[in-house]
This record gives sequence, structure tokens and C-alpha cells, in this order.
Amino acid sequence: MAAAPTLAIADWKSLAASKRESNYNKIPTEWRLPSSLTSHISSTSNSSVLDIPEKSGLLTRQELEITENYDAWALTQLIAAGKLTSKEVTIAFCKRAAIAQQCVNCLTEIMFDEAIARATQCDEYLKKEGKKMGPLHGLPISLKDSFQVKGSQATIGYISFLSHPPSTTNSTVVDILFRAGAVFHCKTNLPQTMMTADSDNNVFGRTLNPNNPSLTAGGSTGGEGALIKMRGSVLGMATDVAGSIRIPALCNGIVGFKPSAGRIGFGGSIAPGRLGSPTAIPPVIGPEATSVRDCELVLQTIIDSTPWDVDETVLNIPWRRLSSPKTPLRFGLIRGHPQRPLHPPVARILHTAATQLKEAGHSIVLLDDQIPDLYTCTMLSFKYFLLDPQKTPVKHIQASGEPWVPSIPTCALKELEGWQPSLDELWDMNVQRMGVVRRFRELYTENRLDAVIMPGYQATAVPHDTFGVPIYTVIQNLLNYPAAILPYLKAEKALDEPFFKADAAYEPPYNPATFENAPGALQIMGKPMLDEELIQILKVVERDLGTAGRGRALE
Amino acid sequence: MAAAPTLAIADWKSLAASKRESNYNKIPTEWRLPSSLTSHISSTSNSSVLDIPEKSGLLTRQELEITENYDAWALTQLIAAGKLTSKEVTIAFCKRAAIAQQCVNCLTEIMFDEAIARATQCDEYLKKEGKKMGPLHGLPISLKDSFQVKGSQATIGYISFLSHPPSTTNSTVVDILFRAGAVFHCKTNLPQTMMTADSDNNVFGRTLNPNNPSLTAGGSTGGEGALIKMRGSVLGMATDVAGSIRIPALCNGIVGFKPSAGRIGFGGSIAPGRLGSPTAIPPVIGPEATSVRDCELVLQTIIDSTPWDVDETVLNIPWRRLSSPKTPLRFGLIRGHPQRPLHPPVARILHTAATQLKEAGHSIVLLDDQIPDLYTCTMLSFKYFLLDPQKTPVKHIQASGEPWVPSIPTCALKELEGWQPSLDELWDMNVQRMGVVRRFRELYTENRLDAVIMPGYQATAVPHDTFGVPIYTVIQNLLNYPAAILPYLKAEKALDEPFFKADAAYEPPYNPATFENAPGALQIMGKPMLDEELIQILKVVERDLGTAGRGRALE
Repeated sequence: MAAAPTLAIADWKSLAASKRESNYNKIPTEWRLPSSLTSHISSTSNSSVLDIPEKSGLLTRQELEITENYDAWALTQLIAAGKLTSKEVTIAFCKRAAIAQQCVNCLTEIMFDEAIARATQCDEYLKKEGKKMGPLHGLPISLKDSFQVKGSQATIGYISFLSHPPSTTNSTVVDILFRAGAVFHCKTNLPQTMMTADSDNNVFGRTLNPNNPSLTAGGSTGGEGALIKMRGSVLGMATDVAGSIRIPALCNGIVGFKPSAGRIGFGGSIAPGRLGSPTAIPPVIGPEATSVRDCELVLQTIIDSTPWDVDETVLNIPWRRLSSPKTPLRFGLIRGHPQRPLHPPVARILHTAATQLKEAGHSIVLLDDQIPDLYTCTMLSFKYFLLDPQKTPVKHIQASGEPWVPSIPTCALKELEGWQPSLDELWDMNVQRMGVVRRFRELYTENRLDAVIMPGYQATAVPHDTFGVPIYTVIQNLLNYPAAILPYLKAEKALDEPFFKADAAYEPPYNPATFENAPGALQIMGKPMLDEELIQILKVVERDLGTAGRGRALE
Repeated sequence: MAAAPTLAIADWKSLAASKRESNYNKIPTEWRLPSSLTSHISSTSNSSVLDIPEKSGLLTRQELEITENYDAWALTQLIAAGKLTSKEVTIAFCKRAAIAQQCVNCLTEIMFDEAIARATQCDEYLKKEGKKMGPLHGLPISLKDSFQVKGSQATIGYISFLSHPPSTTNSTVVDILFRAGAVFHCKTNLPQTMMTADSDNNVFGRTLNPNNPSLTAGGSTGGEGALIKMRGSVLGMATDVAGSIRIPALCNGIVGFKPSAGRIGFGGSIAPGRLGSPTAIPPVIGPEATSVRDCELVLQTIIDSTPWDVDETVLNIPWRRLSSPKTPLRFGLIRGHPQRPLHPPVARILHTAATQLKEAGHSIVLLDDQIPDLYTCTMLSFKYFLLDPQKTPVKHIQASGEPWVPSIPTCALKELEGWQPSLDELWDMNVQRMGVVRRFRELYTENRLDAVIMPGYQATAVPHDTFGVPIYTVIQNLLNYPAAILPYLKAEKALDEPFFKADAAYEPPYNPATFENAPGALQIMGKPMLDEELIQILKVVERDLGTAGRGRALE
């Protein structure tokens, strides 16, 4: 096959500029921020922009109330009860998403007009039929750019995909959410190739962290993470093959839930690479959200729809309604790996959580010395990501002549430089993987564990292009265990200091001022296929750590 | 790595002879058949040997009653109620298995002494504790040779594996069955490499079909098929990657159930090839039995034991207790493929079943022209079986100098001669496979099908070494859909004649006399992961075709 023609550099830059301009034009003039509010924001500024939506004066009191005070679960209740209309909710979130976009560059496709029209239909349906379209009736939902929505593009940040026409079909999960009553108001930014933790590409540019724009918003579902933290959305659909749901959740300070593979179908999604990978690490779809019960709401809604009838990538496993688990629970605890020692705030936050859970009566079993080497597991995982002899993502880049974004080389493993995949080694990799899975299964069984608590990363959000390899999130993909990020506490120099170790080789370097006030988080890993159990365990943790109601939800 | 030393031919022959002699010595003298009963049996004789157990006079009236009149479900009831002891049941089946072995050469490892000792323990436990060890309390179960049982070998018919010491651990499924109260009385024969449909190897020789020794007993779990048909066992554990549970079931006239992959764990089984295959077609474990409810009993027992706690190859999906499905049902019907036209008895039996099910009120939707090409699907499947660049099974053969058994070349696809696997093509194979899966999913959804009825093979059991490629059973492995064989009717020249097509290229050739009275069968394919639903559907089919009670079970 002949190589696709390479564009001149000027060409790709103008194509990208034109796409961004067309996006900007979709923000109504009256929703545009004055430069006085935004000119100080850059990838080197460190003041939170979380107050700009309110400061902008663009949102009414009611719109601030709608966007700040509820989670998805509460909003669907209010809409269903006629206390709010889908239209007013949708306008509020579109407006706030527009503000978020102007602050942290989190959007790819803007679908405000379509969303408001759809919301109006939802309201009319409710009025006429006297019932909801479905469990998500009238709720605005945002989507990672890799999901397809009829009429919008899905370039996933490749310049070469800018020539693709708008999608003519929805991804199956989009269809399912639509039938459940959802309103789609925007798609969100992601990294070039989706295989790095900075949501930066040559089409849409870089998403900044709203807590501190000098820090990464994480990736690959980083646009979602920043948008939800800005409350330009309360619920977004994300994907995860090495941490892409969870990294943005921990960087921004929201909830992220990575289900077991096969629970949610990948039908009709746009892949950054070649289809048909013989990998042992399939990507999964899951929510970024502001509460655990919102993760439950969306997973339950999708799986209740019998998605296996419309999508052969789904396992036919009904969603089980569970009540609260028998407590106290038994948690394994993993406190880090010598090659990626925990930054003081992360060590302190993990320690505080474990202590608090122990005080609540739960058991904590230290696993540090019993688990397989996480760094070796990461190398194995990365080999699975490099299995394509045709290096298709490289071709997608070369097709336009666009350069690599700076983040890409930062998450490569030096040990794998020059590594070429082979069918023969793939057999050995699978045997090696099975050994890792066996060991974790044994640890869960021998210690009668309900879940494992561990960091989602060795640091809080870090400066752009310094995230490196995600050894604390890729292990769950290698195992195919469900896992979630819960936001918890934040970096506070004074409290963190006792956890500083002078001899630790922190990577990236630890300078307390850089990270001050960055959101903290816990990662909680469940048992394979028991996504329902993990949701219930997370609710117990939310309750016992006092972080429930983060969505300031109606009860 | 240096090649293993090759044995001289005389060496491997004497090794095999010594193993067979040691086996024969484990049959008590008083259970040996006079040559007057067995000398006429050979791979060219065509008289049924099913009457030999009774004719031999070795079994008491009670032992004939025990071995002939009940299925596993009924036997466990009788043992639990104290109406039979496990010891008398076990002795009866050991005796009958010994007779079966002398007639059709179906056993590999003989564990009669261990079984009787274990049965005695079961009886004592029941007496002392006043309760069963578990749902399979006291029940003799046979196992394909690839399962490991502590103290017995698992050579799987490779001469080079004869030097392996006896197993020091049980396969996980064996452990589970043991804890549920099972008694293991023997292991059963299989083909060299397990990848052909004649259970023939250089260690144990060839298993014959008890209905007609000139016909194949099928494979790869053919020893089980012949043993169960002889009623030397009522329940056996088998494996299936291309039809290995189902082919022996249809050849011998028993029930075989292939579950969805991952429902039953493969931990501790002996593989005929290399571990770690990146195949899209994982092998599965399932029962060969005499009734559908016995398949349900054993699957439910295993899955109820939370096998995922002890075996990481199991999906954590609890067994769901279902009641009878809402009838009438909707069945798809596949009547064959032009390259493997159905032999007249199979065409007639399928037609009769479809007619009878229609008369019982069910709907039948003809799918012949709508499904993907089964021959192409078989080629794709066979590529998955040839993915090992090291050709490990060849090494296992070469290590001893033993020759290939004649059946091996008969099930190779000429189109794949010289085909070498590559990582690059594997990606394309996976895309091709996903297209096949999508098409079947669409057919089930569009036609609201509960199940699909089709042949398990184009013929009944066929003469030895003529089975060829199993295009009607490998498709369910490629799809990962559960499927079962139900015995139904038999070849009858007079009735079959109207279904003869003079222009059909029957393969293997059709000569009515060759197949007269060979067992007939139906294959019924369910929906992915819905093994429980398929069990219930099979019970409806059993009822409506009048074949229930085949195990002459107590109700």
C-alpha cells in the first residue's frame, strides 16, 4: 500500500487552526469570556481557575446552583420530578462547558445547539407522555472524543483524521445512553495516540488542570477530567487501557471507575491504532463522575439495556443489584514501589485513609512485599501496547507530517527501546501475565480481601509532560481487575513534610511548592468481574472517609 | 535449547507396551473377559458391543441395575438417601469400566482401588456426619486424561510424557469435584495432540465405538464418549476447542455440553501444546453425560464452589438458577454447508427434529443463506490452532521418535499447507473473527432467536481416520457460544433414502450399510455466556422430542 501523502507543515497547522476556529465559533458570543479573566491562564500559571465560572457573571444564580450542587443522580431526580427542565439544566452545563473550554481547553466537539434541541425534546416527551425516556432522562453527558456521535467528527486529535467526515452512526454506548434519555453537549480532549497522560495533541492543543494550570490534567481522558472538575459536566464517558479513566480523575480530583473488560461495549468507537490486537489488555469504557452512585447509575443503565444484543464486544452479564456489603471489610494495602516512591502528599494521604478505615473497624493487610514487581508488570503491559508490527499510530501521525507532542517520549520505557514484538514472545508474555494474575488471585484469597487500596500514581498531578510511566494504574489493566479513583484530601506542605524522605529518588522531582493544594486521591481495586461489589465497597469507603456527598447530591 | 534425545523405535514401542501392561494389571483377574467375548472385536468389526457387559455375567443383577438405570442426578439422590452405598455404586462402575476397556480400549489411567477406598470414606462420612460431603457425594466420575489426579500419570498419549512422574497435585476442577464428594475411578483416552477426532495415540492405542467398532468413537474426548455409552461411567469431564466434547457425544450417542469459555477453569490441566497462546479460541471444559440435568448438576456444582478463588482462569460469574423458559421458543436452523453436505441420516434426523419442534409450537427460522461461510470460518479457526512458531506438539512427538497416528493428516486443511503464523496476520484474523461474531449476534437479535439447531457433523460416526475437518463444531468455539449435543434417533437406511442426493459430494463417502444404526444427534447452540439459559432450552427440546429420561432417571 502506498504511503498516504504527507502534508507540508504549514498545511497541518492551518488545518488545525481552522478546526479550532470552527470550534470557537460554536461558542455563542454572549458566552465568551473577556480576556481580563483568561489572559493570565497558561501552562505555567498556577492559580486555580475553578472560581472563574462564578466570577465571570455569565451564569445566573440558578445556573450556578444547577451546575454546582448536584450530581447526575440528583439532577435526573429533579428533572423527572419536574423541578428542573432538561433545557435549563442543559443550557447551564453548556454555558459552563463553554467557560471551562476558554479556561482549560478541554473540549473537542461542541454540540450545544444539538444538546439544547434534544433537551427540549426530552421536556416535551415528559410533558406529553408523563414518563421519562429512561433513567438518564434529560441529563447532559460529555464524551471522550473517541466516541462517535452522528453529525460530529471524531478526530481523536490526529491531524490526518481531520479529513474524515462527521460520524454517520453513534458508538453503541452512545446509542444506549441516548435511548436512556441522555443529552450530549460536548466531546472532550485527549492525547495524541491516547497513550500518554498529557491530554495534548496538534489538533486541539493541551488541556490544563483547572486546579492549577501549570499541572497536567492527566490523560488520556483528560478533557473530561478538567471539564467535570470545572463542573461543565457532571458525568462523562471515558476509556482506560493503562489508567486513562483514573489518571485524569486523580489529577483533577474527581471520581473515575474502570470496570472489568467486556462489561461495556466498544462497538463503533474510534481507535488510535489498528483494530484486532491480540493483546491480553483490552481497553475498557467507564465513567468519570463526581460521585460513586453516578458511576453506578450509568453502568447499571448501560448494562440493563441488554447491550449484548447490539454489540458483540460486550459480555452478556446482567448488572446485579446489591445491598451494602457486610462490614467490617478487609482491605489489602499497597504503599508503593521502590522505583516510584510516593511523593510525601500521596504517602500521607494513603496513610491517613488507611488509618481512618482501620478506625472505622476495617482490617488492613499490608501487601507491599508480597505482590509481583509493579515495574516489571508495567514493562510487560507496555509490550502488549507495542504489538502492532505496522505501528499504525505512527502512520496516522506521518500521514499529516504533524510532529509528536512532547509528552509521548516521556512515557516510553527505556528498557523497551528498539523492542520489536514477535509472535513467539507473545506466548511467553501471556505465560508471564498469567503468573501475575495468579499471584494477585492468591493474595486476595489467602487474605480474604474485599479490595485493595493503593495509590493511583506516585504523585498528585505533576507539571506538564513529566508524568512518565503509570505503574500504579496499568497493573489493574494487566490483571483485568476493576478499579476506581476516589478524591481524598489534597497536597499540604505542612502536613506532608513528615513523609518526606531525603534519600528517595522522587520521579518526577518533588518540590512542595509545585504541588501545593493539588487534589489527593485513593485507588481502590476490586475483584475481577465483581464491578457491582466494588461500587458498594466504594460507597462504604466514601462514607467512612467522610467524602460522600462530594457531588453535593440531594438525598 | 538442545533438542530432547530421540528414542529408538523399539524403545518407544516397549515403553508404550509396558504402560499398557501396567494398566491391564490394574484390572482384577476376576473382571477380565474371556477371549470368546472379545476376540471378534476390532477396528473393522461392526457388531455393537453394548450387550457385552450384560452377556459377560460379571455384573450382578444389582450392578446392572445401578449402571444402566440411572443418571448421575438419580444416583446421587439414591446414595444420599442411603438406598445405595457409594461403595456398591463405585464397584459396579469400576467393573463395567473394566469391561468397557476390554471391549473398546477407552481408558488411560485405572484408579479402581483408589476409587473404592474413597467411596468407602464417603459412606463412612455420610453415616458419621449424617450429611453429604457435597452435591456429588459418592458419585463415580471419569476424567479425560488431560486432567491431573494426584498419584496418576497424565501422559495425554505422548510417548515422551511417559517419563513424567505421577501428578503431585489435582487440576483445580478435580479438586472442586473431590470436595463436592466425587469418586474418580478412571481417566480416559484421547488423540495424539488432542487435535483430531479419532482417539488414537501410540501410548494407549485407539478407542473403538461401542455401537459399531468399525466406526470412530470421536475425539478428542473419545475415551469418555465410548466409556459413558458403555455405561462404565455416567458422567465424565471433557475439554473442547473445536468439538472435542461434542464430537464423541454425537459419535457414541450421549449428551455433551460445551460451556462458554471461562465458566470452568483450566488450572492444572496438561496441555498438548505450548502454554500462553494468544488465540481467540480458548479451550473449554464441560461434561459428557447421559442427561441434560447431569450437565446442569456438574456445572452448577463447580461454579457454586466459587472456583475463581482458587483458579485465575475462571470468570467470576455465579451460576444462575433459572426456571423453565417461556415457550414457544424461536430456533434458528442451519442445514449444512455445500462443501460438507449432510449424509442422508443426518439430514433426515435434523428435518425430523425441526418438524417435531414446529409441531410442538416452536418457531423455526432458516438461516442457511444468512450465516458466514462455515468453511472459511473453519480455516480461520485452524489458523488459531497453528499459532505456535515453535510447533510444540511436534517437539513432544519428536522427543520420543514415535510416529504420527494416521488420523492427524486427515484433519488438516489443504489450504493451510505451509501456512506460517505471523503476528501481523493475527491482527487481521482477529478482525475477521469479529466480523463473524458480529454477524451471528445480528442474526440472533434480528430474528429474536433463543437458540440455533444444526448438525454437529455432516455424518454420524464415520470409519476410523475419515472424520476430516469439523466445520460444524468449530464455529461455536470461534464464536465462543455455548453448544450441546443431544442424541436423537439413529441411521436407518430405509428412512434415510429419501434424503439421499445423487449429486452430493459426500465426505467421507456415504454408503448406507457402513452407518446403519449409528447414533443420531442434534447440535443446539445458545447465546454467549448464557449457559444457564441453554441448559433450560435443552430440557424443553428433550421433552418435546421425547428424548428426556434417556438416563432412565428417577423422577
